[in-house]
Amino acid sequence: MHRTIPTTQRRITLAARPHGVPRPTDFASSVGPVPAPAAGEVLVRTVYLSLDPYLRGRMGSSATHSSSAPAIPLGGVMEGGTVGEVVVSAADGFRPGDMVAGSSGWQEYAVQPATALRRLDPAQAPVSTALGVLGMPGLTGWAGLVEIGGPRPGETVVVAAATGTVGSLVGQLAKRRGARAVGIAGGPAKVARLRELGFDAGVDHHAPDFTDQLAAATADGIDVYFENVGGKVWDAVWPRLNRHARVPVCGVASAYSAVGPAAGGDMSALLSHLVTRSIMLRGFVFHEFTHLRPRFEAEVSAGLRTGELVHHEEIVDGLDRAPDAFVGTLAGEHLGKRLVRVGEDPTR
Amino acid sequence: MHRTIPTTQRRITLAARPHGVPRPTDFASSVGPVPAPAAGEVLVRTVYLSLDPYLRGRMGSSATHSSSAPAIPLGGVMEGGTVGEVVVSAADGFRPGDMVAGSSGWQEYAVQPATALRRLDPAQAPVSTALGVLGMPGLTGWAGLVEIGGPRPGETVVVAAATGTVGSLVGQLAKRRGARAVGIAGGPAKVARLRELGFDAGVDHHAPDFTDQLAAATADGIDVYFENVGGKVWDAVWPRLNRHARVPVCGVASAYSAVGPAAGGDMSALLSHLVTRSIMLRGFVFHEFTHLRPRFEAEVSAGLRTGELVHHEEIVDGLDRAPDAFVGTLAGEHLGKRLVRVGEDPTR
Repeated sequence: MHRTIPTTQRRITLAARPHGVPRPTDFASSVGPVPAPAAGEVLVRTVYLSLDPYLRGRMGSSATHSSSAPAIPLGGVMEGGTVGEVVVSAADGFRPGDMVAGSSGWQEYAVQPATALRRLDPAQAPVSTALGVLGMPGLTGWAGLVEIGGPRPGETVVVAAATGTVGSLVGQLAKRRGARAVGIAGGPAKVARLRELGFDAGVDHHAPDFTDQLAAATADGIDVYFENVGGKVWDAVWPRLNRHARVPVCGVASAYSAVGPAAGGDMSALLSHLVTRSIMLRGFVFHEFTHLRPRFEAEVSAGLRTGELVHHEEIVDGLDRAPDAFVGTLAGEHLGKRLVRVGEDPTR
Repeated sequence: MHRTIPTTQRRITLAARPHGVPRPTDFASSVGPVPAPAAGEVLVRTVYLSLDPYLRGRMGSSATHSSSAPAIPLGGVMEGGTVGEVVVSAADGFRPGDMVAGSSGWQEYAVQPATALRRLDPAQAPVSTALGVLGMPGLTGWAGLVEIGGPRPGETVVVAAATGTVGSLVGQLAKRRGARAVGIAGGPAKVARLRELGFDAGVDHHAPDFTDQLAAATADGIDVYFENVGGKVWDAVWPRLNRHARVPVCGVASAYSAVGPAAGGDMSALLSHLVTRSIMLRGFVFHEFTHLRPRFEAEVSAGLRTGELVHHEEIVDGLDRAPDAFVGTLAGEHLGKRLVRVGEDPTR
C-alpha cells in the first residue's frame, strides 16, 4: 500500500516533572517535523502506543525513583513502546508495509535504527499483542514466574495487579504448572474478573479486611510471590512467605508516584524472615531474558491460539487522549492492557 | 582415660525473657541430675560452649524475632552448640573418650542422640574450631559466600561484623577468589584488625562519617554483600549494590535485642533498587548446606593448616561466666570467636 507521508506530525512532550501523580498539565501537544531515515534506519508510522506504569518513573521527580535509564528531558517527546508500520526504509531487511515493534514514543512518526525493531507476523497474532501479552509485559510475567519463581504443583503463587497484562498471565501460567493461583486486585469488579481468568482466589486490596482476605486465601502460606506493586500489599504478603519461597520483583508501582519516603515497612523483620525461611528476592528487568523469547513465544502464542490463555485489551483512540489514559492507568482504572491507537491498523 | 561421673551437675537456665539487651538476671544457675543415656544415646561431658548471636532470638520477646525454632521455655536450660567428650555410650559407633560436636547447651553434661553428634578428629584441627571456623559459623560464611554470593575476580565483596568468625572467613575466602574484600566493623581496634586479616579496606560503623567511609571504600559499588547485621549498616550498603549484585543474608544481629519495630529503612526504595539493578537477596541457614561440608572442610582445613587462612579464638573459663560473656558478645566486645571452657580439654 502506498502511503502519503506528511511533512509535519503531532507529538506529546513532557512539559513538567510531576509532583506525585501526573496531571494533564505535565504534558504538552505540539507539532514537529517528520524526520527522514539515514542508512540503517527506517521511518515508522505509529499504530499503537503502549501505556505502562514504568513510564511514570521516566518522567522523574519521584521520591523513590531509581531507574536504570535517565529521565525523559523536559520538552522531550514522551517515551513508550509502540507497534507501527514501516513507511520508508533505508535498512536492509525492512520494507514499507512491514509491521514492527519498537519504541517510537508518543508521536505519529519516528525514525528508528533497524536494530531496535522487531518484525511482527500479523498471521501469528494480532500485532497489538506485541505491546502486551506477547511483548515486554508478557515476557516480564513469563520469565519472572518461570525462570525465577519456578512454581511447582501444589504450591501457592500470589500476584498483585492481577488483572493487568503481567498479573493475569502470571496467574494463568501458574495454573498450567499445577500451582494454586491467588490474585490481588483493587475493587470487586477486578476481583470478579480474576475468577473468569481461572484464579483460585481473588483478594481485594481496597477492602478494609484485605489482610484477613489474604490470610484466608493463602492458608498454607505463599511459595511464589510475583511482586510488582510494593507498599501495603508487600507489607501484607511477605510475612506469609513460606520456607524456600521465591519472590521475582519486576516493579514497585505503588512508589512510582510517591511523594517523600514511603511510610511503614519493617526492614529488620523482613530480613529476619528471609533468613529463617531461606527466602529469595530477585529483582529483574525483562531485558535479562530476551534470549528466552523463543520459549516464551512458543508457550504463550500457542496458549492464545487454543484459547487456553486469555488476555484483555482496551484500546483508546487518538494520540491526544494518551495523557488522560496514562494517568488513568496509574490509578488502575483499566482492565488488562490499555493501548492508544495513534493511527490506522492496516492488519485489521 | 577413666572419668568419674558425678550424679549432679551445674547448668544455666533461662530465668526471664529479656526486654531488649539481656541482663544477668535473665539467667539462673542451678544444680540438676546427670542423666543416663538410653539405647542409641550417649552421655557427653561439655568441654567448650559456643556463644552465638542467634541465641538472643531463642530467648524470645524480641520485637522482630522470627526464628524458625521455638523459643527456649522459661526455666529451660539455655541452648548452645558444644564440643564435648563422650563419657558413657549406649550407641554404636561412639566410645568413651571420643570428642564430638553437638548441642548440649549451657550445662556440664547432656545426653544426646548419636545421630545429633559429629565425631571430631583432634589430629586434623583443634576441637574448639568445630564451634567456629570449622563449625556452624564457618559453614555459614563459606556456603553463603561461595554458593550464594559467587564472587568473581575483581568484584567488590563487603561483609559486616567483619572481625567475627563468619565475617573474617568471608573476607579471606573472597580474597582467595580474586575479589576485593571490604570489612565493616565497630571501632578503630577492629578496623585495624581487618588489615591484619588481609581485607583491602575497613570501614568503622561507629564513626560519624561511616557512610562516607563506605562510599570511599567501595568506589566501584558492591557486587556481593554478606549480610549479617541489618539496621543502619544495611541502610548504608544497599544503595551501593551494583547491577546483578548478590546478597546472602544469614542474620540480622542488630535486631536480636531490638525493642519495638526498627526505625528507618525505605522498603519501596529498596525494592526499586532491586528491580533496576537485577539484584538477588537470599536468606539462608547453614543447615541447607550441610551436604557441602566435605568441600567446605577441604578448603578451610587446608587453609588453616598452611596458615593461608587465620582465625581468632577467645576462651572464657567457667560455665558461670557464660551469661556475662554472652551479653558482651552481643555488644561486640570480642574479637573473633568467643567460647566458654566448661570443662577440661583432654586434647590440649
